[in-house]
Amino acid sequence: MGKLVDMTATSDSVNARCSISRGLEVLGERWMLLIVREAMNGFTRFADFRERLGVAPDVLSDRLAKLVDHGLLATRAYREPGQRERLEYVLTPAGRDLVPVLAAIAAWGDVHVPTGFGPATVFADESSGTPARLAFVDAAGNELPVEAIRFTPGPGSLSRR
Amino acid sequence: MGKLVDMTATSDSVNARCSISRGLEVLGERWMLLIVREAMNGFTRFADFRERLGVAPDVLSDRLAKLVDHGLLATRAYREPGQRERLEYVLTPAGRDLVPVLAAIAAWGDVHVPTGFGPATVFADESSGTPARLAFVDAAGNELPVEAIRFTPGPGSLSRR
Repeated sequence: MGKLVDMTATSDSVNARCSISRGLEVLGERWMLLIVREAMNGFTRFADFRERLGVAPDVLSDRLAKLVDHGLLATRAYREPGQRERLEYVLTPAGRDLVPVLAAIAAWGDVHVPTGFGPATVFADESSGTPARLAFVDAAGNELPVEAIRFTPGPGSLSRR
Repeated sequence: MGKLVDMTATSDSVNARCSISRGLEVLGERWMLLIVREAMNGFTRFADFRERLGVAPDVLSDRLAKLVDHGLLATRAYREPGQRERLEYVLTPAGRDLVPVLAAIAAWGDVHVPTGFGPATVFADESSGTPARLAFVDAAGNELPVEAIRFTPGPGSLSRR
């Protein structure tokens, strides 16, 4: 039993059970989320991503392939008049679900690494145009003060402390 | 004027103005946010981070130094009886402000890379124990449907579209 406890307490297991770690295994590279940002801006084509991001073509190819592998982007064939068929990249629902991740990073960046020009990206309700910000809420949707929010081990935790 | 427009339209400028990109320049590496996760779990010491994360010591030293450079962790001296003085690492307010970023990544990971054991980390109001989830809200704190949230260029954007 001692051995089992030792084994389950290894850092690998802690990370394997942690959704933050698992999320970062997919997302934890700057270009990945910047490609997703451009996909959310409506861009779908290799040349657009390359131009918008200033990323080397081989790096872009690699990251697009990873995003497709992980199910964040899906490929779709298109053909411009007189050109060969090419692939474009469109967000899947899993990719779309990264909106709060990008909003959280943007909100942090606006405060802690500001440009002095104000936010370059804001988030808004598409139908009404109402500006939207991220907040912690309770089950009923009532806002909770962010300063009071703490981590607590969940049902999937190896070590409820 | 054409030249000015060309220059400001370069991808470097788009990224320089983007708080997502600027945030990721600080955060865009898996170990950085996992160290912050452990700091939020209350760990402060090199040996604790190393054991919890299973990260190579040289990588951990490098990432801790970066986190201190970027102002997310601050060092504090401590001395165990009979030992030399050592440094421990404590979250700064800027580091603490990453709670929503980690919560957003965790929520995405729980849905899209689940372990089958449920969330390992949940977020809760410290005083009441009320479980907390991230949501988009309007200025008055009323929840907005996440499906309707879109990017729109903000005041710091180079290209309001």
